[in-house]
Amino acid sequence: MVIRNIRLVLAYEGTAYHGFQRQPNAPTVQEAVEKKLACITGEPAQVIVAGRTDAGVHATGQVINFHTSGRIPIERVVLAFNGIAPFDIVARHPAEVPLEFHARFSARARTYRYYLWRAGPSPFLRRYTCRVRLPADAPERMRTALSALIGEHDFTSFCAAGAETDTRVRTVTQASLTEHGPLLRLTMTADGFLQSMVRIVTGTLLEIGVGKREPAEMAEILAARDRTVAGETVPPYGLFLTRVAY
Amino acid sequence: MVIRNIRLVLAYEGTAYHGFQRQPNAPTVQEAVEKKLACITGEPAQVIVAGRTDAGVHATGQVINFHTSGRIPIERVVLAFNGIAPFDIVARHPAEVPLEFHARFSARARTYRYYLWRAGPSPFLRRYTCRVRLPADAPERMRTALSALIGEHDFTSFCAAGAETDTRVRTVTQASLTEHGPLLRLTMTADGFLQSMVRIVTGTLLEIGVGKREPAEMAEILAARDRTVAGETVPPYGLFLTRVAY
Repeated sequence: MVIRNIRLVLAYEGTAYHGFQRQPNAPTVQEAVEKKLACITGEPAQVIVAGRTDAGVHATGQVINFHTSGRIPIERVVLAFNGIAPFDIVARHPAEVPLEFHARFSARARTYRYYLWRAGPSPFLRRYTCRVRLPADAPERMRTALSALIGEHDFTSFCAAGAETDTRVRTVTQASLTEHGPLLRLTMTADGFLQSMVRIVTGTLLEIGVGKREPAEMAEILAARDRTVAGETVPPYGLFLTRVAY
Repeated sequence: MVIRNIRLVLAYEGTAYHGFQRQPNAPTVQEAVEKKLACITGEPAQVIVAGRTDAGVHATGQVINFHTSGRIPIERVVLAFNGIAPFDIVARHPAEVPLEFHARFSARARTYRYYLWRAGPSPFLRRYTCRVRLPADAPERMRTALSALIGEHDFTSFCAAGAETDTRVRTVTQASLTEHGPLLRLTMTADGFLQSMVRIVTGTLLEIGVGKREPAEMAEILAARDRTVAGETVPPYGLFLTRVAY
C-alpha cells in the first residue's frame, strides 16, 4: 500500500461555517472538506491546514494536505472534489508532495487581507467588507501606524485574550494599506498570526484613522503587551486568508 | 391629508427571493420592501416597480415608487429603511416626485447586464456570474451577432414561451459585450424587455460563441419570431438590472 501526501489550495466563503476547524455541533470547512475527500479517495480523510480561520473568515489561498492510500490520479482530484463539494468551497492546484510536507508546520509565511468599505451600504459587499466612516486623512494616518508593526515583536496586545499559544512573538514582513476608490485594503504578511491578530490590528487602526488615537501610539500599544490597550476586534467577514508561502 | 409620491432606487441580491413581484407562498423583494416601508410610514405600502425581475435576478438600479400620507422627511426615508431592511436589500437616492410619476410607465429605458465568467470556479462569484467555456474568438463572434439586435424589432424569439404581453416589439438602443480579464459583461438597453429576454439572448450568444452557430444567424433567429429557434435561457444569477432612465 502506497501512502501519498496530497496538497490542495482552497478558496471558500466562510459565511456559512463556524470556522475551519472541526467542531462537534457546528458546520465547519474542515468537516465539509474531509467528507468530500473521503468520497473521492474511498477512505476517511484527515486534513492538515495552514491557517485555522475563524468563523465567518474567508480564504482565497488556504492550503491543506492529507495522506491517502487512494489511487485517484492527481490531475483528477480537483475536478472530482469541485464536482461534489458545496458551492462555497473550491479546490485548486492539486500537487503530490513529499510525505513530510505539513501544511501548517512547513509554511514560512501567511498573508491575510482585510477589506474596509467607505461608501454606502451594498447588498453585494456585505459578506466581504466592513463598512466604516473615516475622515479623508485616515489612510495616511493608518499607514504611518502600520509601519510600527513591521519586524519581530511580541504581539500579545493583538492576540485574542485567552488564546492558547506558546509564544506570542511573530515576525511581520509586510503591513500595507492601499486605496481602491471607496475600498481600503489592508495586507499583512507574517511567519504566523495569533488568534484574531489581523482583526485587532484593524480595529486599532480604525481608532487611529478616526482620530481617537495618534499614529505614534501604535508602537506604545505593541510595547504594552496587553490586549486591553489595543482596539476592538473588527467583524470576521472582511477578512481573507489570501496566501501561504512554503 | 397630503398624499406624497416617493421614488427610491433599490439594490438587491436576488438569491434569496422568488423574484420581485409578490407571490402568495414565497418570499419576494416586493413583500420585504412593502413590509419595511409600512414600518417607516405607519401605513400599508404598495410599491410600483420599474422592472419585475425574475427569481434569483439581482438589481443595482431598480426603481420603485409608492404613495403615502406618512410625514417622514424625505431625507430620512433611506436611513430609516436601510436601518430595518434585510441585509440583501438597500435603498438609495430618495426623491419626492410628482403624483403622476409611475416607476413602470414613466420609464423610458432599462439597462440590464449579464456576467459570464471564463475562468475556474470561485466561491465568491458563484452568485453573480455564469461560468462558461468559450474559445478565444468567442467575444468577437458574439459582438457581431449582438449588433443584429439593435433597433426596433419583434423579439418574440427571445421571449419566454407563454409570457403574457400585448406586443413583443421593443427598441434596443444598446447591445454591447466587454471583456474584463476572464469576465465578460453583456450590456443591453431597451425601452422595455420581454420576460427572460436578456437571458435568452445570452443563451443564443453562447451558442454562437462556441461555434455551434454563426454570428449571421442572429438576424434569422430574430426574424423567425419563434422562441424554439433561439438558444437556451441562461441561469438568473448572472443577471443585474442596473439602470432605469426617465
